[in-house]
Amino acid sequence: MQDKNISQVVISRLPRYFRYLGDLKDEGMERISSGELSKRMNVTASQIRQDFNHFGGFGQQGYGYNVNYLYEEIGKILGLDKRHNLIIIGAGNLGQALANYMNFEKRGFFVKGIFDRKESLIGTDIRGMKVMHTDDIEEFIKNNNIDIAVLTLPKQGATEICKTLVNCDISGIWNFAHVDLDVPDRINVENVHLSDSLMKLSFKIHENEN
Amino acid sequence: MQDKNISQVVISRLPRYFRYLGDLKDEGMERISSGELSKRMNVTASQIRQDFNHFGGFGQQGYGYNVNYLYEEIGKILGLDKRHNLIIIGAGNLGQALANYMNFEKRGFFVKGIFDRKESLIGTDIRGMKVMHTDDIEEFIKNNNIDIAVLTLPKQGATEICKTLVNCDISGIWNFAHVDLDVPDRINVENVHLSDSLMKLSFKIHENEN
Repeated sequence: MQDKNISQVVISRLPRYFRYLGDLKDEGMERISSGELSKRMNVTASQIRQDFNHFGGFGQQGYGYNVNYLYEEIGKILGLDKRHNLIIIGAGNLGQALANYMNFEKRGFFVKGIFDRKESLIGTDIRGMKVMHTDDIEEFIKNNNIDIAVLTLPKQGATEICKTLVNCDISGIWNFAHVDLDVPDRINVENVHLSDSLMKLSFKIHENEN
Repeated sequence: MQDKNISQVVISRLPRYFRYLGDLKDEGMERISSGELSKRMNVTASQIRQDFNHFGGFGQQGYGYNVNYLYEEIGKILGLDKRHNLIIIGAGNLGQALANYMNFEKRGFFVKGIFDRKESLIGTDIRGMKVMHTDDIEEFIKNNNIDIAVLTLPKQGATEICKTLVNCDISGIWNFAHVDLDVPDRINVENVHLSDSLMKLSFKIHENEN
């Protein structure tokens, strides 16, 4: 029952709802009112009700929301009921950190291969996978049903590799490189620019000091 | 000449401007028109002009913006002309990745210490620093003029450590733990919830497939 015109702002809030609902589920809670959820999440109950209305409600007046149902439904909207196969390009510390992050698997994201172009890293073992050469990316994507590439390599490399990914018609790029990628609209990109985030923190500190 | 009522949206765009201006500087460009910058950054020239007006303009009609001046001024607004001393709490892969990320130093962010509570990690060497025990955080912060703590540890640990950080009156927390921290308003928090970001990517892919 998904409203096709959900705003980007609402969508950007869904992962956080999903995270909180997951915690409630783990605590064994079956129902929650918008008021209670509001207190926990520090957003207004009316925003919660409005947001959930976009997806056909899920709530019953005076009865609250069914935690498990809501968790499942938001999960579906986020595409988490589907399996995603990932490759990580860049086997440095950050690439390794992401490869070792088990929680992604719980959400249906499976790391199938890790690549680098540094000879010293090729063949080394990360979580039971041998690091492969970036030259082999195109073939690997085609043969392994890869839909997401994670870019954890320097700017220069990222721009080059990106051309390969466009050729392979990858569905999504999770980009940690400090560059905005130039890709056709059909390819979905989500950027994590860590230094941008650190600068925002610096701004807040600076602003509060003045 | 900073307008005190700059919206959060404008502020969230500043790190990206800063990044592009840094690239232009590196390319040796001295001036750029809002039109040229617009093309590069894929935002409208009018938005660029409006955004820059918040900070007293910096531009001259028909002459363009002085790249270096703009870079310096935005840097100042972001507090990057000040030195920040960081500690990293959580010496796993992600903590190590951030510790080894040299670019932060270029922006004035210096990692002064790394902490963990896992005995096997204490005393190991990361970029010339010995990992210390989390019990020593409070004293270390006080003696080393630390203003930012980076949290790269699991949820449970993060909530506990957060209390210590509040006691120490830390200025900023850069939070990678998958939990929203409960801190007084005077403490600035910037969250990087990696799985939220991956879920957004999954949403986009799913949405484009339908």
